[in-house]
Amino acid sequence: MEFKLLKKDSASAARLGIVSTAHGDITTPIFMPVATHGAMKPLTPAQIKETGAQIILSNTYHLHLQPGEGLVKKAGGLHKFMAWDGPILTDSGGFQVFSLPGKRITEDGVFFKHEITGDEIYLDPERATRIQQDLGADIIMAFDECIPYPCDRSYAEQSTKKTIRWLKQCQNAMTDNGQALFGIVQGSVYEDLRAMCAREMRKLDLPGYAIGGVSVGEGLELLKKVVSWTAPHLPEDKPRYLMGVGLPEDILESVERGIDMFDCVIPTRYARSATLFTRRGKIRLTNKNYKRDFFPIDPSCSCYTCQNFTRAYLHHLFAANEVISAVLSAIHNVHFYLRMMAEIREAIANNRFMEYKGAFLGEYLPGDKKK
Amino acid sequence: MEFKLLKKDSASAARLGIVSTAHGDITTPIFMPVATHGAMKPLTPAQIKETGAQIILSNTYHLHLQPGEGLVKKAGGLHKFMAWDGPILTDSGGFQVFSLPGKRITEDGVFFKHEITGDEIYLDPERATRIQQDLGADIIMAFDECIPYPCDRSYAEQSTKKTIRWLKQCQNAMTDNGQALFGIVQGSVYEDLRAMCAREMRKLDLPGYAIGGVSVGEGLELLKKVVSWTAPHLPEDKPRYLMGVGLPEDILESVERGIDMFDCVIPTRYARSATLFTRRGKIRLTNKNYKRDFFPIDPSCSCYTCQNFTRAYLHHLFAANEVISAVLSAIHNVHFYLRMMAEIREAIANNRFMEYKGAFLGEYLPGDKKK
Repeated sequence: MEFKLLKKDSASAARLGIVSTAHGDITTPIFMPVATHGAMKPLTPAQIKETGAQIILSNTYHLHLQPGEGLVKKAGGLHKFMAWDGPILTDSGGFQVFSLPGKRITEDGVFFKHEITGDEIYLDPERATRIQQDLGADIIMAFDECIPYPCDRSYAEQSTKKTIRWLKQCQNAMTDNGQALFGIVQGSVYEDLRAMCAREMRKLDLPGYAIGGVSVGEGLELLKKVVSWTAPHLPEDKPRYLMGVGLPEDILESVERGIDMFDCVIPTRYARSATLFTRRGKIRLTNKNYKRDFFPIDPSCSCYTCQNFTRAYLHHLFAANEVISAVLSAIHNVHFYLRMMAEIREAIANNRFMEYKGAFLGEYLPGDKKK
Repeated sequence: MEFKLLKKDSASAARLGIVSTAHGDITTPIFMPVATHGAMKPLTPAQIKETGAQIILSNTYHLHLQPGEGLVKKAGGLHKFMAWDGPILTDSGGFQVFSLPGKRITEDGVFFKHEITGDEIYLDPERATRIQQDLGADIIMAFDECIPYPCDRSYAEQSTKKTIRWLKQCQNAMTDNGQALFGIVQGSVYEDLRAMCAREMRKLDLPGYAIGGVSVGEGLELLKKVVSWTAPHLPEDKPRYLMGVGLPEDILESVERGIDMFDCVIPTRYARSATLFTRRGKIRLTNKNYKRDFFPIDPSCSCYTCQNFTRAYLHHLFAANEVISAVLSAIHNVHFYLRMMAEIREAIANNRFMEYKGAFLGEYLPGDKKK
């Protein structure tokens, strides 16, 4: 894997780049739609490709439990198994495991129970790395401890040091077959811990770095702070990935602060609950106002859904509980995100990212909702 | 609407034809996938088209209750509303209404309760015709009384006569805008009633005729009998549609007896429950035998699903309860049906329908399951 920094915005820390993988190039800043079980609810790979997706994320925790990385490897790897020929990033499973009730964390790894069979499973840096190597991911995430929020400083410090130690174990466990390991900067809400973690990880000279432990639910102000504390300590010539983020406004603020990669289940999850993104903000299609609204979801959108269907039809599909309500909505929401990312890249290329951000948010979050 | 009979098979009553509608031509014999609420569980119109579908069926009962034909008409008709530019056939709603508990049947129509609001609704031949005209269907089905099975002769006779009377009312209610009304031959399991009904309806010189009241669940032998009693009494120069049928073996037996059009929810319903059609019979993908089966559903199939995914992947998707399990399975099952119909047409064109049928069933229902 290789990263080429093409351009830095003149008025912000926003960057334009290219990540080259064995399965093709990714232009950054980029958003990665999430295919949890090796399937993106509710789209086929052909539909994902049509939304403009360049890279997708899949979850190691879910694939390890079922069908198991052994089977995926036997099937020829995750790309072949799920018929996605573009790049794939897998998370390490850490985020899911640390949120399980009844897990037992040691200095070396985590014990937890299989959610279906009840069997005890053990995951540690070596195993998490091996699993992702077996899955055949292009980008492999280090196994880290996800620090709960809020968290006192002493636990945060101890945990962050463990995550740094685990990262070295992940790096040692990697066998060379064209896959790239990203480290994940932790440190909770403590500026010095974030900086220390970034500096320590930087020494390992990894192909890329992520910022973890920033949950969207904790607010945009905290997100901006954590990104501002961390990104400047990361090497300029490596991609930076903000994990699990976020809403369009979160992404814009983070790009401004130098982030290159994002992933989030929001576009598809919102699609299932009839919440659709438009340039003028989110709309809830089950609202009765849309029953006789014969306009597309977003008149400015070029996705399959907006080119063919009205809000009235989508409203009807949700009322009738038809599966394609979620399909058509997901096509639109994912396309909305990827179109925004393409526009962000173009804006950076033309040194007008801050203008773009201002114009986007002025329309998307007008009035006092604007931040 | 126009029907052109292109060819009759030399060794059976099988026919090759073309139905021309305002939304394009249909080559017969044909299978019509079912889009109940103006949406085909779980495929988008683009995916339906890719399966090879030429015409789809939508349900008047469901669309009348929600969103209502008025809204569909205002949206520009059902084709535009659901973004399907090929021909659409709508049923009359009779089948659904007569299976409702608490309905009240009179000589003129049927009273029933709206399943959500509880409001009393009245449907009669004029109304059912008007609704379908408002929906903009290319082919409109007459409002008939669906006779329960089994049924004594005296009720069957009285009901069949009512259906004939209602058909005349439907015909009178039709305003001319390029839509075609099909009559539905009833008569339960009584040969003379079927023949009488067909002869009486034939006098009305309608653009097409259907055979109703033949439920798949009542067995292939009864189906063959009813079709054999009815089809010979229908005009040769009009298309013949066997409603709600059926399994591949039902379709083959009916084509042999002169049927041109079919519809059934089986391909999509079976897809949702992991039952997939193959040339060697049905398989149930949730069976653990498929967990490590890296072959396509049907190695001879050219559908998107078989070209890209293995049985192991589909097995995994069903186990993970992923929505695209039903999507990919429906793509295959509908394609399976439409491929069979295309092969049937080719066989008729080459005067070898009976050979084709024998070869198909020999592979599909081998041994003593063969009929």
